[in-house]
Amino acid sequence: MPPRPTIAQQLAAKQREISVAEFFERNRQILGFDNLQRALLTTVKEAVDNGLDAAEEASILPELTVEIEKRKDDRFRVAVSDNGPGILRREIPNVFGKLLYGSRFYSHRQARGQQGIGISAAVLYANLTTARPTRITSKVEEEDTAHVLDIFLDTQRNQPRVDSEDVVLWDRPHGTRVEIELKARYLRGRQSPFEYLRGTAIVNPHARIVLVEPDGTRVTFERATTDLPPPAKETLPHPYGLELGELGSLLKASRRPTLGEFLAKDLQGVSARAAKELLERTGLAAGAKPASVQGEAQERLLTALHEAPLVSPSSDCLSPIGALLIKRGLRNVLGELRPEFFAPPVSRPPKVRGGFPFMVEVGLVYGGGLPSDQPVQILRFANRVPLLFQQGACAITNAIASVDWRRYGLDQKGGTGIPSGPALLLVHVASTKVPFTSEAKEAIAEDPEIDKELTLALQAAARHLRTHLSRKGRREFASDKFAIIQRILPKLAERASRMVAKPVPDLTPVITRIMDVVNVETRVNPGPDGIRVPVEITNFTPRPRVLELFAEVPPELLAAARFDPAPDGTEPALGRAWWTLPKLLPNARTTLTASFPPKSEVEANDFDWYVAGIDEAHLLGADPLPGDWEVRLPRTIVEAAEVAAQESATSGATEEEVDYDAAEASGGVREED
Amino acid sequence: MPPRPTIAQQLAAKQREISVAEFFERNRQILGFDNLQRALLTTVKEAVDNGLDAAEEASILPELTVEIEKRKDDRFRVAVSDNGPGILRREIPNVFGKLLYGSRFYSHRQARGQQGIGISAAVLYANLTTARPTRITSKVEEEDTAHVLDIFLDTQRNQPRVDSEDVVLWDRPHGTRVEIELKARYLRGRQSPFEYLRGTAIVNPHARIVLVEPDGTRVTFERATTDLPPPAKETLPHPYGLELGELGSLLKASRRPTLGEFLAKDLQGVSARAAKELLERTGLAAGAKPASVQGEAQERLLTALHEAPLVSPSSDCLSPIGALLIKRGLRNVLGELRPEFFAPPVSRPPKVRGGFPFMVEVGLVYGGGLPSDQPVQILRFANRVPLLFQQGACAITNAIASVDWRRYGLDQKGGTGIPSGPALLLVHVASTKVPFTSEAKEAIAEDPEIDKELTLALQAAARHLRTHLSRKGRREFASDKFAIIQRILPKLAERASRMVAKPVPDLTPVITRIMDVVNVETRVNPGPDGIRVPVEITNFTPRPRVLELFAEVPPELLAAARFDPAPDGTEPALGRAWWTLPKLLPNARTTLTASFPPKSEVEANDFDWYVAGIDEAHLLGADPLPGDWEVRLPRTIVEAAEVAAQESATSGATEEEVDYDAAEASGGVREED
Repeated sequence: MPPRPTIAQQLAAKQREISVAEFFERNRQILGFDNLQRALLTTVKEAVDNGLDAAEEASILPELTVEIEKRKDDRFRVAVSDNGPGILRREIPNVFGKLLYGSRFYSHRQARGQQGIGISAAVLYANLTTARPTRITSKVEEEDTAHVLDIFLDTQRNQPRVDSEDVVLWDRPHGTRVEIELKARYLRGRQSPFEYLRGTAIVNPHARIVLVEPDGTRVTFERATTDLPPPAKETLPHPYGLELGELGSLLKASRRPTLGEFLAKDLQGVSARAAKELLERTGLAAGAKPASVQGEAQERLLTALHEAPLVSPSSDCLSPIGALLIKRGLRNVLGELRPEFFAPPVSRPPKVRGGFPFMVEVGLVYGGGLPSDQPVQILRFANRVPLLFQQGACAITNAIASVDWRRYGLDQKGGTGIPSGPALLLVHVASTKVPFTSEAKEAIAEDPEIDKELTLALQAAARHLRTHLSRKGRREFASDKFAIIQRILPKLAERASRMVAKPVPDLTPVITRIMDVVNVETRVNPGPDGIRVPVEITNFTPRPRVLELFAEVPPELLAAARFDPAPDGTEPALGRAWWTLPKLLPNARTTLTASFPPKSEVEANDFDWYVAGIDEAHLLGADPLPGDWEVRLPRTIVEAAEVAAQESATSGATEEEVDYDAAEASGGVREED
Repeated sequence: MPPRPTIAQQLAAKQREISVAEFFERNRQILGFDNLQRALLTTVKEAVDNGLDAAEEASILPELTVEIEKRKDDRFRVAVSDNGPGILRREIPNVFGKLLYGSRFYSHRQARGQQGIGISAAVLYANLTTARPTRITSKVEEEDTAHVLDIFLDTQRNQPRVDSEDVVLWDRPHGTRVEIELKARYLRGRQSPFEYLRGTAIVNPHARIVLVEPDGTRVTFERATTDLPPPAKETLPHPYGLELGELGSLLKASRRPTLGEFLAKDLQGVSARAAKELLERTGLAAGAKPASVQGEAQERLLTALHEAPLVSPSSDCLSPIGALLIKRGLRNVLGELRPEFFAPPVSRPPKVRGGFPFMVEVGLVYGGGLPSDQPVQILRFANRVPLLFQQGACAITNAIASVDWRRYGLDQKGGTGIPSGPALLLVHVASTKVPFTSEAKEAIAEDPEIDKELTLALQAAARHLRTHLSRKGRREFASDKFAIIQRILPKLAERASRMVAKPVPDLTPVITRIMDVVNVETRVNPGPDGIRVPVEITNFTPRPRVLELFAEVPPELLAAARFDPAPDGTEPALGRAWWTLPKLLPNARTTLTASFPPKSEVEANDFDWYVAGIDEAHLLGADPLPGDWEVRLPRTIVEAAEVAAQESATSGATEEEVDYDAAEASGGVREED
């Protein structure tokens, strides 16, 4: 029998270096190639994400074609063409035939691809399942012809192998085309290429995407805007959340001659003054060589950086979707469902995790045709890419599940888990480095900083929902009261008068005393010449009112609107406008009309109305003016409102003296202008 | 302005090879280092898994110590020692300081570690967060001293860097100790090192594990057995599920001189006959060089292999937990909760996915102290390792959620999702290659083959639950009836007799006619001399009965049992035993007793009772003999049972003629033996 020592030696003999490509070949589920359906989606996704990134980097409006063709049984050919700048011949093999090769891994800038794995993984999977090379056609503008290369990925060496090569004429100025033959399954539905492209079109309305399905169906997602999103700018690492080892690498790699310059030029957010204080606090010399800062000194510097009051990360390295596109996107998704409420999209300011800026956006819609007895629908996006798989593993899902939605008006068993109700949530996490749970990039990993921002954004959206539901509740209650008062009271009065053979009395004082609200009601009337939005302000209180009306709308809508009467003032950047309304007698109404060009995207929900000159308890369909407005308003307006309020209070004491129009007294309302 | 061509060139200039270690440093969440709590657990887990693998590979009973010490604030030192065979000096740097280096990646054998990433990832994380090297102490038996190395992982090159080195005396024959200093957080609770080690101890009862917590608390998980599990054997790839590229690699790498030998010796499950048929079908020559089979020929061969009736994968490359240990493990977890029902653990036969054998085991317990208004508890294991994170992303969770548990007696909203109820599910997936969703190995990826086996195993466990609940329901119904009949009827009879001044009549015929069941009741009475399990068979039918009783128990329990009376026959391998019972008159009882040594793990649920000679509708606490028994039983027994049944049917017609014992007539039961 061999003695035990042999075991250590036997084990040692088995030790081997593992090829990264072989590792991923055997663990292809990690790359998103778990099964045939997902393999197809992942392939489309990687090619499309690359195409969009390439076009945007070159400031080109993206134009993509995705063709999916069935070859036989479970074999498909996916061809994705883009109009990006093209790839130089010498880079083509590595970009497509080598894992962990790319241009965006070391950058600090929001991009879809970050890992240098995606498209090569699809090439690897094609090799594995069909043993066919991937064909790349690419043309750069400065050359007259396109290069066509057939590429394999040699898994043992993780190196590209060019199987054949040609030069062809291509009828486009520049662009890239990838043709991959792979084992796959084509299914429609929630996790299909169609859904992925639809989601992509929603948050990338500047892209035009054509999908040709295996049965020949051709779907075009037309671009909704020709404005490219502002390009995400390259930035520097921010010190917040940097680990010791990362700071060490930055110091070691720095080309700056001194520590002072390193702090000012290799990091984000460190002002000259902060740098000075940091050096004082740590006792380090401004003139020290960056690489000389090691060991304890490095730890001191890191602690000081983490605790210093640095400038917040800049958001220009990020490319958020933005409130308007979130709303437009949700409207696209919902189509005929027409929800009753679009919450104003929430966009949190950028924060930092591990040196990387990130930000969270949330959209919420409620009611209408959305099913009320099912879990709320969740649309997840990371860096403008829809996430269709791994919902259960995603930090977005977990953040949603940990909010107590019962407080905001949704059903939720035990106050935890995905809530139920007629709602849809869109959540976007944008970052220069999204922490995905795996290379398949389908779920965001748990991170305390991201979780905090997600929770705050979700709660903000949820508060809008709660406000809406409470307004709706108050309005429904009031309109029930209305129905009774306006219809039944006059009839009762008429009957009673007839019985006692006396004239019908003026009911206005009674009605207004019972209602005792100023009602603001917004309607949206689309027409061929444009969209008219009449806003009716009715004084159902027993006193005459002089009121100030304030509107807050998305700035781009305010810019498109014509108001009649014209506002007394506006703040275009904030989307604000205000009016002093004519004096409104009890039971009298005034109407203000906003007009928009045809096809404008306007909803009643786009207008937030605020009223000054009356107590909150007497307002319906509007809120009292929030505190942060008044400082921005011209003082005269505020004073005028105060005067009006006083006046109204005084005149209210003599309501009997007011002259009512008898014709409108039995429940009707008279128009003023 | 520079012309557009520059963009393609600019982009090309940014293209870079990405170091695999830098990739994982930036994406450490993929490796399980998302946050401070998880970082600690992942570090402990990787070191412990390696220690267990090493000891088992050398057929050593594992003995591990895990010390977690707080250094300052969020800095901890984790030290894990094992009694494995040790690691040769020359291998130490690569094993701990290089990602994608290991001994198990290319093997076909169940092991905890498979990727060559885990422990090096912990070293990488330590570098990053504390800039401290990891200290390895290792001794192999053939050397007198241990080597001590301080190791860094150079992320740019993915190479180990030995910072210092020494040789020391170590008071153990062989073993390895890893000391890692890292940024972490120590928390108790569901996802703590304690829970991980407890779970590990449950499914590895041959290991002894000591945990020293930061506050000095010392917890010892004593081994429950000194039997090592049978070592998982190295096997060959099975052709089912192999991809074209994989077959190509195998053919290319084969050292066999001919295709015939390749089929017979490089693949699993291909018999000589199957090989011959494969060659005939594909038209390939047996003498062809394996590497010469390419292109179309390779595809033909693969299709033929997939369709050929091959031998199922052998299970000796797998190391399942086994029914006994699943039960024992669940009993440990549940402690004082004492569930009312332990379902017989389900162990599915091995299947293949992508050439890798795998198998699924499921344990289920129900009732007792388990909370009834919460989701069922889920314990997930992969290759004997507890999975504590990413439950929502795991194929095990999804399989549980897609079973309609309402059919089996658990609450489940809409028939989908995690069911609610007083139940706990233990699910183990064992494979030579578990498809994890990421390198952190915390969740199993979706795979149609695994999903199918999970579903079948869960349904089998669920059927046991349904049977239990229906038996319980019947028993409860019957015992309500009992209570009424046995207590109230005699009293009524007595009162009535007194009123009419007549003697109390014999109530047996009435009672048995109302009850009309044969009741089998099992009790477990532990005592100092051993455990007695009396089984009472009572004939509550109005006819005398000659019955055959059959027991099915776990084979190891049957081996330990002494029965009084002795069974008429047994099948030890199947855990079966049977008796012909003495003739039972109406209202008469006979008792059979099984005795076990003290501390045996026996429960009433371990016995499945079957009765022949009576209709199913008249059985309580037992079932009719299933069809698959009869073929295995000696024919005489079956015949005897048939005769008895006939006899019983005949004698039943003359029930009035039977002589009842008057003393027991008023509801009592008489003993027979």
